[in-house]
Amino acid sequence: MNTLGHIFRLTTFGESHGTAIGGVIDGCPSQLKLDFDFIDSELLRRKTAQSSTASQRKETDQIEWLSGLLDGVTLGTPIAFMVRNEDYKLEDYEPLRDIYRPSHADFTYEQKYGIRDWRGGGRASARTTLSIVVAGAIAKQVLKEKGIQIIAKVTEMGDAEQARKEGDTVGGIVECCIKGVPAGLGEPMFGKFSAELAHAMFSLPAVKGFEVGDGFAVVKMKGSEANDTFINMDGKITTATNHSGGIQGGITNGNDIVFRVAFKPIPSIAKPQQTVNRAGETCQIAIEGRHDVCALPRAVVLVEALAAMVTVDTMLLC
Amino acid sequence: MNTLGHIFRLTTFGESHGTAIGGVIDGCPSQLKLDFDFIDSELLRRKTAQSSTASQRKETDQIEWLSGLLDGVTLGTPIAFMVRNEDYKLEDYEPLRDIYRPSHADFTYEQKYGIRDWRGGGRASARTTLSIVVAGAIAKQVLKEKGIQIIAKVTEMGDAEQARKEGDTVGGIVECCIKGVPAGLGEPMFGKFSAELAHAMFSLPAVKGFEVGDGFAVVKMKGSEANDTFINMDGKITTATNHSGGIQGGITNGNDIVFRVAFKPIPSIAKPQQTVNRAGETCQIAIEGRHDVCALPRAVVLVEALAAMVTVDTMLLC
Amino acid sequence: MNTLGHIFRLTTFGESHGTAIGGVIDGCPSQLKLDFDFIDSELLRRKTAQSSTASQRKETDQIEWLSGLLDGVTLGTPIAFMVRNEDYKLEDYEPLRDIYRPSHADFTYEQKYGIRDWRGGGRASARTTLSIVVAGAIAKQVLKEKGIQIIAKVTEMGDAEQARKEGDTVGGIVECCIKGVPAGLGEPMFGKFSAELAHAMFSLPAVKGFEVGDGFAVVKMKGSEANDTFINMDGKITTATNHSGGIQGGITNGNDIVFRVAFKPIPSIAKPQQTVNRAGETCQIAIEGRHDVCALPRAVVLVEALAAMVTVDTMLLC
Amino acid sequence: MNTLGHIFRLTTFGESHGTAIGGVIDGCPSQLKLDFDFIDSELLRRKTAQSSTASQRKETDQIEWLSGLLDGVTLGTPIAFMVRNEDYKLEDYEPLRDIYRPSHADFTYEQKYGIRDWRGGGRASARTTLSIVVAGAIAKQVLKEKGIQIIAKVTEMGDAEQARKEGDTVGGIVECCIKGVPAGLGEPMFGKFSAELAHAMFSLPAVKGFEVGDGFAVVKMKGSEANDTFINMDGKITTATNHSGGIQGGITNGNDIVFRVAFKPIPSIAKPQQTVNRAGETCQIAIEGRHDVCALPRAVVLVEALAAMVTVDTMLLC
Repeated sequence: MNTLGHIFRLTTFGESHGTAIGGVIDGCPSQLKLDFDFIDSELLRRKTAQSSTASQRKETDQIEWLSGLLDGVTLGTPIAFMVRNEDYKLEDYEPLRDIYRPSHADFTYEQKYGIRDWRGGGRASARTTLSIVVAGAIAKQVLKEKGIQIIAKVTEMGDAEQARKEGDTVGGIVECCIKGVPAGLGEPMFGKFSAELAHAMFSLPAVKGFEVGDGFAVVKMKGSEANDTFINMDGKITTATNHSGGIQGGITNGNDIVFRVAFKPIPSIAKPQQTVNRAGETCQIAIEGRHDVCALPRAVVLVEALAAMVTVDTMLLC
Repeated sequence: MNTLGHIFRLTTFGESHGTAIGGVIDGCPSQLKLDFDFIDSELLRRKTAQSSTASQRKETDQIEWLSGLLDGVTLGTPIAFMVRNEDYKLEDYEPLRDIYRPSHADFTYEQKYGIRDWRGGGRASARTTLSIVVAGAIAKQVLKEKGIQIIAKVTEMGDAEQARKEGDTVGGIVECCIKGVPAGLGEPMFGKFSAELAHAMFSLPAVKGFEVGDGFAVVKMKGSEANDTFINMDGKITTATNHSGGIQGGITNGNDIVFRVAFKPIPSIAKPQQTVNRAGETCQIAIEGRHDVCALPRAVVLVEALAAMVTVDTMLLC
Repeated sequence: MNTLGHIFRLTTFGESHGTAIGGVIDGCPSQLKLDFDFIDSELLRRKTAQSSTASQRKETDQIEWLSGLLDGVTLGTPIAFMVRNEDYKLEDYEPLRDIYRPSHADFTYEQKYGIRDWRGGGRASARTTLSIVVAGAIAKQVLKEKGIQIIAKVTEMGDAEQARKEGDTVGGIVECCIKGVPAGLGEPMFGKFSAELAHAMFSLPAVKGFEVGDGFAVVKMKGSEANDTFINMDGKITTATNHSGGIQGGITNGNDIVFRVAFKPIPSIAKPQQTVNRAGETCQIAIEGRHDVCALPRAVVLVEALAAMVTVDTMLLC
Repeated sequence: MNTLGHIFRLTTFGESHGTAIGGVIDGCPSQLKLDFDFIDSELLRRKTAQSSTASQRKETDQIEWLSGLLDGVTLGTPIAFMVRNEDYKLEDYEPLRDIYRPSHADFTYEQKYGIRDWRGGGRASARTTLSIVVAGAIAKQVLKEKGIQIIAKVTEMGDAEQARKEGDTVGGIVECCIKGVPAGLGEPMFGKFSAELAHAMFSLPAVKGFEVGDGFAVVKMKGSEANDTFINMDGKITTATNHSGGIQGGITNGNDIVFRVAFKPIPSIAKPQQTVNRAGETCQIAIEGRHDVCALPRAVVLVEALAAMVTVDTMLLC
């Protein structure tokens, strides 16, 4: 399944070292003048993030818009876009052709499909998330017109410098806040707003956990501590606290929607590891070359992008 | 959205104090002789769970099978079932008609629909999860034939006795393990096996967090610690550890699938709380009567049920 | 797949001689006061239709409403309903247990599922369409509030009296007109309004053809004859003719939506026919008892019901 | 909705005179070595078709494959492809910028989206069907391995030569036969095999009717004439006739699946017509330039392509 969403839908395609990666956005409202500078700046957030803790692959990330626009204005028809894969040295990956990198998707792809694109992780490469940034940037524009804003940040992260020296990697947590969502959005049974967010976030590589509001910490609390008391604030009903993270019974209550996403350390480490190859022989692997020490800086814009897409989709469903 | 699943699909219906609650299971394999005793025992797990920490509502939970069966064997057509709501005292709920209970869905339902069934929580009542137990029991039977087993347990819980005395409630964590799933199941991009599990678990009332494998704890680890080294065990490729929780790149790797779900304390507490009513007036509320002190004991069978449904659905999609 | 629709969704269940038939309507707008008399009158149209040309099964068709309503008003939650199957003589069907009735679904169900409910056609019985009438009646109420009306009629039918005498059956055509649909509804590529109507109509047993506007007759026309000239009628753009049947490029143009559905003669005939049984042995069959001579009178309300459901669903998607 | 299919899914994009048209095929089985010559030959069937009765647009139709392949073998990941739009004279279309061409989608797109791509029909152009040919060619390859063959032909068509002289156009009927489909495929209630075919065929521009088996002609028949008698042919149960067109109760019975699709005359005619412009003013229009006299020759490969896609999708769902 390479499509996310019900009405505002992103279908992505592309392998890390194939011809191109890209996506098709279906269901975007018409008559929206795309802010290409903003889209580029979002892609830049992803790139700039790389400079300190991330990989050195030279990605020009020049988007080519293929359809759905007339003079930069959305037509309501599918918006297709792509970015060509250029910086491409196959010989870097040749040694990995028959080896299953630990905690990567090499083995599982091969179990599922009987074949895998061994060039740079293929479809499982983090590079494919570029399409999510593009769709998310457009979704943010849709939300901006409705006064909805999405801000994520890294709230926890391992010591990247120390890990880099050891040829190791670290993980962390991204917290995200969606501000300005009106009360009454989302589905109450299956597909709760929280369920849609969780589902979307687990699309990202390396995600191991998701929590909304007080999340796992709520386990230590009593009902009287975790409940959000309703109050009347200048004629508007709201809550005194936001332990719920803006969602009650799956439906937004008008408060900030707050959630956190846990990312594991990137599994590509320079440190030597033991593994097996396709023949089942034990071997050593040390993943050299340009690889992120930590996915977190990149992940911030990705979490925001998916949150924006889920929010737009939910609004269009109502 | 009251339907869960792609091929094996459960559509649920019913309010806590309406005529009946129930569901329609579509896509169940044909020629399965239903084990009604097992289904009843699963429902009993949910009821027995109530005795110590849970509410005292007398639920006979007698299932009436409406369709999809011939002499107890599945036809491949939709299996509809229902349980009538009997033990019914409207006057218990009358005081709550116009009050928004803190951290309940009263307010958000009303924001979404402009109307709500105020009788016992209506559609948002935990009673509606009964349908999930039924569908889950059938899913477990399908899995059993394939050697797949699902076992959940409470791994963390507040002190229920102490909380009961104070008219308060507690939350906790349910851990679940799916054993025997072959490698290669699940989707790699959107709708990863982990994403489908997260999505399903957030259907349950009171869920605030979901994590797979090492989950949030992975944040403290380095890549070299969190990676699962591949090994050749008697000719079969597997991993030496299971930090990944049986899923890599969204696809099962043949190991146990392990995940945890965090439940908040039940928001219905006897302790007096402040809230507002529909008119926006501040008022006090003390939710008397039969209410669970902790959802966890009930939640075990629910988590298993949803895990079973997601697993069957994923297998049928492949 | 026993669910029809994207937002306004009907999931049906039930076999002809199982416990009950019924359905779950998800996505119905909330705060609609159901007109139960109207629903009953729609069911009556289906029953009255039987008197002259149709079967004599005594169907009381008493609907039991299971959920989704509070004092007869829709809550926005799933509306479940059922009708018990009562008038039930298994011995009538016993002889058909192992025989494949010509042009019935006995053989194909068995090929698909390895099992079938042989009692009165099981899931393939026309009795299951009762659920469509109920959902259609509710959809019509939703449309009525928006000034949209749906009227179908039989425009062609074989000579039923003559056929009855011979123990034979006849087919015919139902034409349907949806009045008052605003311009701009429907999807332009896949899932055109016409495609959704076609898809829905082919859900009905015995349907062999569907056409919109001039339909198959357009084959004899030239472009200059088949085109609908745009005109300005008192400031409103409309067309001088309606060869298109109200749909252009998949999207409504504001004119009446007109389509026709072809129904084959009911395959249950009293006249002896040759067939084979499960063992592959040739045998004779004469289907006695209460059976319609023609499905057309019943079909009128069914075509209207599905048209109403598709129209509501399309409006909710926009 | 720009996606067709449940498991084997085609998402299309592109406007006639935008940057490119193309599609993303999701759910294609892995390890299929694509026969690019065959795909090209299918595209050629569409182009050759143009020579006599169709438009003269120079379409090089050079497919660029963007993803999903490794050395021409499918990876199981999305197969994206595109064709650039080259032969492009905007001034040809400028006069049509503000005019609603009769029986085109200009008016309805504008009603739906408030904007339209006026360049050559934009998204509603028949050029967009090129993506269907590509996906259909791949689907045919999947089917070929299972011994399933699809053959369509024009069975009725107006006099194209005469119409061309008059600046007019003609319509016609395409009949299609799917050979080798095993019994037991398809869904019995909603989404019957016939319903899926109807739904897919109505995706094509200019389609006004669809019938399966005897179709509308069955209206003149009696049950005894329209029924397909079961026979035992050398130990295999089949039917003596095929009035049903290979589908009974929505499920395939192992016979040839036969259906017909009615296409209206192309609405672009050189003959002057009256219409209105966006301002609501009456005006004359004569659509000059390269336009098909008849869509039928092109339509043959399109009908086959969609039939192939529906068949593969249905098989993957079972």
